[in-house]
Amino acid sequence: MSDPRQITMIAFMQAQNCSNYTGSWRHPSSHSDFLTPAYFQRMARVLEEGKFHVAFFDDRLAMPDRYKNDHVEAVEGGVRVVKLDVTTIMTVMGLASTKLGIGGTGSTTYFEPFHIARAWGTVDHMIGGRAAWNVVTSVNDGEALNFGRDTHVDHDHRYDMADEFMEVVLGHWDTWEPDALIVDKEGRFADGKKVHRLDHKGRYYQSRGPFTVPWTPQGRPVIIQAGQSGRGKQFAARWAELIFCSVRNIEHAKANYAEVKGAIAAAGRDPEKVVIAPACYVFVGETRAMAEEKFAISDSLARPIDTLALLSEAINFDFGSKPMDEPFSDQELAQLTGMHGMRDRVIANSGKKNPTTRDFVEHSGRGRLREAPIFKGTPKDVADEMEAWFKGRACDGYVLATTEMPGGYEDFVRLVVPELQRRGVYHKDYRGTTLRENLGLPMARRGDWRM
Amino acid sequence: MSDPRQITMIAFMQAQNCSNYTGSWRHPSSHSDFLTPAYFQRMARVLEEGKFHVAFFDDRLAMPDRYKNDHVEAVEGGVRVVKLDVTTIMTVMGLASTKLGIGGTGSTTYFEPFHIARAWGTVDHMIGGRAAWNVVTSVNDGEALNFGRDTHVDHDHRYDMADEFMEVVLGHWDTWEPDALIVDKEGRFADGKKVHRLDHKGRYYQSRGPFTVPWTPQGRPVIIQAGQSGRGKQFAARWAELIFCSVRNIEHAKANYAEVKGAIAAAGRDPEKVVIAPACYVFVGETRAMAEEKFAISDSLARPIDTLALLSEAINFDFGSKPMDEPFSDQELAQLTGMHGMRDRVIANSGKKNPTTRDFVEHSGRGRLREAPIFKGTPKDVADEMEAWFKGRACDGYVLATTEMPGGYEDFVRLVVPELQRRGVYHKDYRGTTLRENLGLPMARRGDWRM
Repeated sequence: MSDPRQITMIAFMQAQNCSNYTGSWRHPSSHSDFLTPAYFQRMARVLEEGKFHVAFFDDRLAMPDRYKNDHVEAVEGGVRVVKLDVTTIMTVMGLASTKLGIGGTGSTTYFEPFHIARAWGTVDHMIGGRAAWNVVTSVNDGEALNFGRDTHVDHDHRYDMADEFMEVVLGHWDTWEPDALIVDKEGRFADGKKVHRLDHKGRYYQSRGPFTVPWTPQGRPVIIQAGQSGRGKQFAARWAELIFCSVRNIEHAKANYAEVKGAIAAAGRDPEKVVIAPACYVFVGETRAMAEEKFAISDSLARPIDTLALLSEAINFDFGSKPMDEPFSDQELAQLTGMHGMRDRVIANSGKKNPTTRDFVEHSGRGRLREAPIFKGTPKDVADEMEAWFKGRACDGYVLATTEMPGGYEDFVRLVVPELQRRGVYHKDYRGTTLRENLGLPMARRGDWRM
Repeated sequence: MSDPRQITMIAFMQAQNCSNYTGSWRHPSSHSDFLTPAYFQRMARVLEEGKFHVAFFDDRLAMPDRYKNDHVEAVEGGVRVVKLDVTTIMTVMGLASTKLGIGGTGSTTYFEPFHIARAWGTVDHMIGGRAAWNVVTSVNDGEALNFGRDTHVDHDHRYDMADEFMEVVLGHWDTWEPDALIVDKEGRFADGKKVHRLDHKGRYYQSRGPFTVPWTPQGRPVIIQAGQSGRGKQFAARWAELIFCSVRNIEHAKANYAEVKGAIAAAGRDPEKVVIAPACYVFVGETRAMAEEKFAISDSLARPIDTLALLSEAINFDFGSKPMDEPFSDQELAQLTGMHGMRDRVIANSGKKNPTTRDFVEHSGRGRLREAPIFKGTPKDVADEMEAWFKGRACDGYVLATTEMPGGYEDFVRLVVPELQRRGVYHKDYRGTTLRENLGLPMARRGDWRM
């Protein structure tokens, strides 16, 4: 982390037709050219203007059709039904920027570690050492069915597999020593003794190598993780350099922050070298009335199908199969194979051990603006809150979601960024060119991730 | 095909440190910045200046370390040891051009069809309908070992799997009808009745859908295939829109052309709608002496390890394990699981039923300039030969390999292209913006690939 400590800013993007706020595609000022590079290039320019550290792309390998086992309503509502290939979109944005970090989600369940290592390693080279990989274990049966499996791997088991997956990916990234390349036209291309086979033979994975992508300008991509369950947090504590989280308010954020930093220390790592960033929304205007009006426009865009489709997808359960007010039994709750973090949040927020579908709709906030804290008002109002969270050790930075593309970020960059900079809690410019430099992380060294 | 019939020009690229001519990285004028986008962007500009139809990227999912089961020599010789992720590099080149088609290799053995469909579909959108997918079944144990398997799937079996793989990929590309998207902010995002689940449950693959990438500007990526074995040619006849081949001379090319066009007709498709293009090299200078000198420089770059490493990789056999002059037994030949087309070529060219390692080295031409026909001399000399092959129905176009990057293509564009254009056998400009338009192929229609 830098000295003085400064806010890390991440934009929460989707390689698709909407932001993580599904109704966003219906926003009057949202652009609709999401199937062209212009859409993503424009985003890159806006975010880099605001000195964002990372533009981050979420992903899922299926559209949300778990609800009533039917996709028609989801398609008609535009409920995240377009999902583009993430590394392609990362490349588009990375080439339209020079300092902005570009993060993307890659599944440990549906890809081989050699592919993930090669794809993210290649992007990292092509964008000059600014790539990050968000490790997900994937969540639902729709993804399993698209990838030739009957059901999704159960929750804790897939994290065990993911631990080993990390060893293979990071292992491959280490196999070209930083100075292995020579490229002497009269002599050697590389030092053969400085390129190694990984020879991984583990419980779940085998991968021999040698890997085919040399050490990148930042060593290797930055690791992101967003697990919210107990097992997910344990995984993040071991591997992540950027941790995304979902919190209700500043108190919850502080408790989560202390818990996760403690887990990082317990895992034998330096908590100061890991950034914790909760998702949030910002609605800012020159006056409070303008901010409220912006919020009201966005809030009106949500439709019931958004919540039901996304909730069913994330929890991996068809919420259309159960009456609205019938409680989930202990056994049903235990058997849910999707996001345990979201399930647990609903239980906590509703105060019910056995919540109903209605409780899930109400307390998950899924598909609506209730899903993340909202900072709203004048630039001063917003900066006051963001500074208070940051200085109060509720977070090290923010994963800023938006409800209009690119207007939500344009507002933030024009109005809030200068205010945060004036207060000295947000950098005035990028420190270097690689993402590790700009995050204040140490340069990667071979083997530094091993316990 | 257009009227009058014109040459289709394809550049044979590699997403790595050398061209398919391994020694190319040692060429005095080759650029060495292959780990940066500038390298590929420069190539794109050169090729588009020359109105190339396609820049095509080969791929393999392992470095060539089969020879003596050791990678040190291959690494020190730069024998295709860097292999970057192909769709990332396709995106880099596609964004640096506006008309050039961009093709890339994707393995049916090591990826799921849903991934291939999504990745190539996304690239096709991001570059405005100019993408092509080269279907390979992959060739060797190095790839298997990187992807968690013990040995590579045997030759004919993997083509049976590939047939079904094609049905899944093309099936997914058909599931969004061309007019499914509406994007009415006051109404529907898309017509839910025009987006379909594929529900594929076959012998080897299952994939449900709905797919998450809408119909692209050219409908779907163009299909490339380069199988040289009997089974490979049968596969190409059924699926390919561009067929790459390896031939010895014009007579061989004519025989191959007639055979493949016949196979296409026998498969119930229109042979005039499939482009057959052999690989070739061009050495051109203002005088013959200059062309000879250029050839001599390139020819001197090959080293023995280039041949042995690449041969072992392609045939999937360690040629270091057998004395140079010991013939391969019938059984050994039958059990080779790599490229049967190359094995058969060595048998044909050597005139020996049981060739030795020395015969493989000599007659495969692997790693040297003997691997493809060479057109050499003044612009008139080169254009004479290219025109003769084309008009003589030895081919519909060329897969132009090079020995220096980008100089080999710069020479061709500056000297040969204007001469071919003057003769009326090569287009003066692109006809449209999508690859299908520029290849003179019909716009894709849903289901037009079904038998």
